[in-house]
Amino acid sequence: MGSEEEKLELLGMWASPFVQRVKWVLKLKGIEYTYTEEDLTNKSQRLLNLNPIHKMVPVLIHNGKPILESWVIIEYIEETWKHNPLFPVDDPYQIAMARFWGQFLEEKLTEGIRRVLMSEGEKKEKEVKQVIESFDVLEGELNGKKYFGGDKVGIVDIVLGSILVCVDVVEEIASVKMFDSQKHSSLGCWRKTFAELPGVEGDSPSKDDLVAYALHRIT
Amino acid sequence: MGSEEEKLELLGMWASPFVQRVKWVLKLKGIEYTYTEEDLTNKSQRLLNLNPIHKMVPVLIHNGKPILESWVIIEYIEETWKHNPLFPVDDPYQIAMARFWGQFLEEKLTEGIRRVLMSEGEKKEKEVKQVIESFDVLEGELNGKKYFGGDKVGIVDIVLGSILVCVDVVEEIASVKMFDSQKHSSLGCWRKTFAELPGVEGDSPSKDDLVAYALHRIT
Repeated sequence: MGSEEEKLELLGMWASPFVQRVKWVLKLKGIEYTYTEEDLTNKSQRLLNLNPIHKMVPVLIHNGKPILESWVIIEYIEETWKHNPLFPVDDPYQIAMARFWGQFLEEKLTEGIRRVLMSEGEKKEKEVKQVIESFDVLEGELNGKKYFGGDKVGIVDIVLGSILVCVDVVEEIASVKMFDSQKHSSLGCWRKTFAELPGVEGDSPSKDDLVAYALHRIT
Repeated sequence: MGSEEEKLELLGMWASPFVQRVKWVLKLKGIEYTYTEEDLTNKSQRLLNLNPIHKMVPVLIHNGKPILESWVIIEYIEETWKHNPLFPVDDPYQIAMARFWGQFLEEKLTEGIRRVLMSEGEKKEKEVKQVIESFDVLEGELNGKKYFGGDKVGIVDIVLGSILVCVDVVEEIASVKMFDSQKHSSLGCWRKTFAELPGVEGDSPSKDDLVAYALHRIT
């Protein structure tokens, strides 16, 4: 296999929070890779071949083999490159907790803001309320800790960081307020700390670009 | 800690496919545990304390610590008791594939049949079609293999087995046909093999009981 064994490529799209979190994971772990931007309005044959079922990014290609779905990709990276761990180490209970919170973020926030965007009137108000309640839960869980896992950045921080970028965008497009750094003061502090991390700082698209992109896609 | 270290309890509800898969995992791995049935129409204070966020079963309690969400519980069991593995061993790529298919089953089948149940008319027809297409994908993936992972039963089989029980119930309640063991002949054979496994055979509720329960809950 030789140099083939070192081949790592990420197929992504600049505005995708699912791609963003994989990029951060690779950066924070210090793993070298090549990045290929995919045009989701005109998907490449390569993407369709690599991910025939979902036809979506991110796709991580390691030694020619495609790994799909952001959470699955992140667990794969963690198991393959064990340095700079982003999951708790040798502690099945704490690993389970990280997975639990990862699932919580996806079900309550990723799905929640999608529903806010798709609904109107009373239904929309209800969805906004549910997202806010999820932030209340996260505020209670963080409870003044530096990161969700404690003193070191971990996978829950990275996933939440990627989703919060979208929360900002949905707030602007849907003219609602969900994340309140006054009310959610632990989360407010956490967000500042996370954004300043080397590997995170400067490595995310601007809100204006994302709003323009989202408006273009949904209209 | 002494005997405390051996304490393993599952809080469940007989009709839940999420509980069923955890039961099968424990049985197939040969792990002893105590089972406590929860009345979801009158949730115990204990359940509310152990799972204050989702207030749902299954909850696995290991040495007093609650583990939540069926997939998270199953990964925890696998990492804690390594004998009779149900995930591929020492092969991050194959582990990623198992996780990918687990997520596929949940998104396409669990969510798909829920949507079939909640919709009417053309929308319902569209949802039924999507579930059938997901069975087509699974048929292609199984492609004559004994189990999804090969010769040995694994986690994808267990999760699919738990969902198929619900497919039967939704087919009856919604008067639709989704799983066709003639058209999906690999899946048809697989289902027979899986149902006859010691540890699976005889350990699931009857379709009639489930239909009666479901009709009682949704009407």
